[in-house]
Amino acid sequence: MTIKSEINLNSPSSEYLSHLSIDCVVFGFHENQLKVLLLESNFFEEWALPGGFVRHKETLEEAATRILQERTGVDEIFLTQFRVFSDPERKNPGFKPDSMQKAGISMENFDWLNQRFLSVGFYALIEFSKVNPQPDLYSSKCEWKNVEEVCSLMMDHNEILEAALETLRLQLRYQPIGYNLLPEKFTMPELQKLYETILGRELDRRNFQRKILSYKIVKRLPERRTGVAYKAPYLYSFDLDVYNRALTDGLSGDW
Amino acid sequence: MTIKSEINLNSPSSEYLSHLSIDCVVFGFHENQLKVLLLESNFFEEWALPGGFVRHKETLEEAATRILQERTGVDEIFLTQFRVFSDPERKNPGFKPDSMQKAGISMENFDWLNQRFLSVGFYALIEFSKVNPQPDLYSSKCEWKNVEEVCSLMMDHNEILEAALETLRLQLRYQPIGYNLLPEKFTMPELQKLYETILGRELDRRNFQRKILSYKIVKRLPERRTGVAYKAPYLYSFDLDVYNRALTDGLSGDW
Repeated sequence: MTIKSEINLNSPSSEYLSHLSIDCVVFGFHENQLKVLLLESNFFEEWALPGGFVRHKETLEEAATRILQERTGVDEIFLTQFRVFSDPERKNPGFKPDSMQKAGISMENFDWLNQRFLSVGFYALIEFSKVNPQPDLYSSKCEWKNVEEVCSLMMDHNEILEAALETLRLQLRYQPIGYNLLPEKFTMPELQKLYETILGRELDRRNFQRKILSYKIVKRLPERRTGVAYKAPYLYSFDLDVYNRALTDGLSGDW
Repeated sequence: MTIKSEINLNSPSSEYLSHLSIDCVVFGFHENQLKVLLLESNFFEEWALPGGFVRHKETLEEAATRILQERTGVDEIFLTQFRVFSDPERKNPGFKPDSMQKAGISMENFDWLNQRFLSVGFYALIEFSKVNPQPDLYSSKCEWKNVEEVCSLMMDHNEILEAALETLRLQLRYQPIGYNLLPEKFTMPELQKLYETILGRELDRRNFQRKILSYKIVKRLPERRTGVAYKAPYLYSFDLDVYNRALTDGLSGDW
């Protein structure tokens, strides 16, 4: 099902601020893979981050939430600003007249759409299973893609995705991560895989386990993962009291 | 001496992007006080953060560097974006026609100056002694003010300052701080005072010392501070190898 998009590209200047766009990097974790939500655009025949423009009376946060809802069908996601991408040479998206005409967008608005845009990057970590991605009118597909296998995206969207990952990497230094991404019960290798995907490199199994346990943010459950061939691994869950305190005070504790 | 400002307020739309401004929060540390660089505006008769607009062909970083140079005489500062302030109800600065006319700004540009602005906040930590603040044409004063004693600022600049402090507080969780702010040799109480001003609360002396020493980012020097009434305190300096590694890997070390 395609939802009705409310993006108004026929009178953009009356509805949206000029020069400013928003791009959303939405991460999920599924089957041991860090995923990102991408759209395939009708106009560009390229994959892109869900993005859009800012209405005259909206905050950036309101705009980002609306854009994500309109373009992917995903509701009530808490998005966080992480950087504005402002290179004046940001690649032009290369609008194609024929596909835009097919979508009912008048040629007069090419100038508006082809102006310089500074794009505010937002990111979110969400629970994979709660999302049912749906493309809007201007997209043919909306899908989760493995972060490690993302192809060449529209404009500078690969750079925006990389910068969002960089923000997560920094977050790993001082905050616990995983509560919104992992199922309630998980194994130590699953948690390690999440960290490895964000860091973009392999970690030593023993060091990782020692360090995670030293922060006391996870507790080992009496159960083990069943149905695996070799030795059944222990299951863990987050200790939410400690986890939430570490979100506020940092992993190394308060000053 | 007043430096020649290059801010062009007589033909703003031809020179600058609409809707977008920049505000810079520049921190320094002097005589045991965290300071912030403020201007007193000719137009508003209020104190404000150094701010300005973005040229059509500039990145935000280039614009912030130029603005800070033009408005305060401060050169070669590494500024970091930290948030965009986008409330559509951000208070109007309340331009006064008479003081603007005095400054040679034509009335026709009131509309441009009174439009909605989203402001990108930048911050920097700099060495107090390296700065010789100088007001631009549109300001009567440019001075360091104690962060703890900052009065009511123009528009939402108190909120922007508070958000910059919030960013520093977060940074204290995972990174060392102080190298750009403190003199080469400092006492433990001086370092503690820096942390206390950023955190906005007092810390326990022993806990603070124990924690700082556990990160090994400072080393005790053989000398003591002389010329003090009571017991002469030890001097410390940063161990730059460890300090720089902690900047990259975080205080609690790499994963």
